[in-house]
Amino acid sequence: MNLSESEGYVLGIDMGGTHTVFGIVTPEGDVVSRGHIDTKGYDSAEKWADALYQAVSTAADKIGVNKFVGIGVGAPCANMYTGAIEAATDLPWPSPIPLKQILTQRFNTEVTITNDANAAAAGEMMYGAAKGLRNFIMLTLGTGVGSGIVCDGYLLSGSRGFAGELGHVIIDHESSRLCGCGRKGCLQCYCSAKGVMTTWRELSGTPDDEQPELTPLEIYNAALQGDTIAIETFRNTGEVLGRACADFAAFTDPEAIILFGGVANALPLMQDAFESAFRQNSLHLYRDRVRLLRSILPGADAAILGAAALVACNP
Amino acid sequence: MNLSESEGYVLGIDMGGTHTVFGIVTPEGDVVSRGHIDTKGYDSAEKWADALYQAVSTAADKIGVNKFVGIGVGAPCANMYTGAIEAATDLPWPSPIPLKQILTQRFNTEVTITNDANAAAAGEMMYGAAKGLRNFIMLTLGTGVGSGIVCDGYLLSGSRGFAGELGHVIIDHESSRLCGCGRKGCLQCYCSAKGVMTTWRELSGTPDDEQPELTPLEIYNAALQGDTIAIETFRNTGEVLGRACADFAAFTDPEAIILFGGVANALPLMQDAFESAFRQNSLHLYRDRVRLLRSILPGADAAILGAAALVACNP
Repeated sequence: MNLSESEGYVLGIDMGGTHTVFGIVTPEGDVVSRGHIDTKGYDSAEKWADALYQAVSTAADKIGVNKFVGIGVGAPCANMYTGAIEAATDLPWPSPIPLKQILTQRFNTEVTITNDANAAAAGEMMYGAAKGLRNFIMLTLGTGVGSGIVCDGYLLSGSRGFAGELGHVIIDHESSRLCGCGRKGCLQCYCSAKGVMTTWRELSGTPDDEQPELTPLEIYNAALQGDTIAIETFRNTGEVLGRACADFAAFTDPEAIILFGGVANALPLMQDAFESAFRQNSLHLYRDRVRLLRSILPGADAAILGAAALVACNP
Repeated sequence: MNLSESEGYVLGIDMGGTHTVFGIVTPEGDVVSRGHIDTKGYDSAEKWADALYQAVSTAADKIGVNKFVGIGVGAPCANMYTGAIEAATDLPWPSPIPLKQILTQRFNTEVTITNDANAAAAGEMMYGAAKGLRNFIMLTLGTGVGSGIVCDGYLLSGSRGFAGELGHVIIDHESSRLCGCGRKGCLQCYCSAKGVMTTWRELSGTPDDEQPELTPLEIYNAALQGDTIAIETFRNTGEVLGRACADFAAFTDPEAIILFGGVANALPLMQDAFESAFRQNSLHLYRDRVRLLRSILPGADAAILGAAALVACNP
């Protein structure tokens, strides 16, 4: 098979604070080659880009690919409009980092960058559970709660690229839960990994000053074994999420809410409570009209596919 | 002046339960001719369309216009996708009414229909306070609270045309205020004309079973004369609106919130409370980044211009 004869290969890059992972992706969404380099250990973003270029070239040569139609990059705090990483706290170089410019010069190809949550939404629309959907909201329930909003087929950006920060919608103004953003009661305080741990701690009566004994995965496993506090923890998480999404529906009239990230794996434990809360709290126009789905992208490739999809999503 | 030599005239139609108003609009947004017919009094929507066609033809002939590039219609419960009026409670014919089809056949021209709030947003973007803005939220504070959301230059529609029902976001789950939609605590219960009257009644201690003594306009005039309860009524309304908009900003990263409708005329009495609540409740990304503006479209022409703008907004 001479791959170089086919057109349409995209390079997807998932840049994290520790590792940078890349994949060469066909128009059908198959990752035909993978690789990674460290993100740390380079004096500058330019030197990191040089190392990335070497690694990508080697991987591309091996499979006979000699050009990309575009490069998509998912990175923390990446701004699609400015092309820069702004105020990233876990990268080794000072912000802003003109990532788009650096990679465009190094690879001599069109580069699109955005934050991780938007990339996830793009990937799901191109290759995953949202294939064929033109209206959905992707919620990434992980360390934090991120979101990407697709309305009328477009991934929303907003005036400065900050559309879709739904993890920071305040869902309880009386809440005592402090968010990383400095405010209290954000959705993220309830539906992130830490939020789930906090709920478990509250329900189990574990004092605030003690370390929580269980991680979300351990709580999940306990729930599967019938532990009532663990079951109630995820029921509660689903209920909070359903109530929040009932309001979210009034923005973009979505066909589906799609969950991604570690906490999303507990969807079966949250679904009933989500649907009940959504039905109780949504306007009649949206009731029974919005499906709750889980990402179907293969975990290891999700970030690469998301980054690759950016190239096609917002041309 | 032979107007027919210029291209680009649009017919804007504002269809209400009682009257149908129309205007012939230049590409610059000047309404060069106006007219109206009753909405009631016709056996069918087709006969109403015949009467409208007669009235429009007469008006167009008078100024020498012999064609329109398109027709825009703002109507209650109008769905841009289906082209029909769905479940309108104050029109004399049974729903759904295939309005787009009826008018296209009668006028032999491209017809775009949408609900009043979306039309208002389109008008503001083409000709009003949002000229040049690509990201804003238009809130219509009138009998109800409607909204039109423009993100990345597009007026959002959603999967079935029901995007932007922000009047029905629940802002207080403990609220005792019953909304027309059957739920409690919707934004509409606080920021519509009725919402302002309810707030005034609560603050003044007027029992629920007594008719409110003051209309919003009377409360506004009382506030201008220094009445403390009236002043507090609008301060409270502005505060509720500011807190709600702080969450709204997390959806679309808007440059501005634009108020339209009767209650919007009290903007000077609400602005300080709005801005203070917005600052206190918004994520740092949006703080001090979102302007609160009032519609600048001339009241009598706003609905016509909004309808006309639909033709250009979403081609």
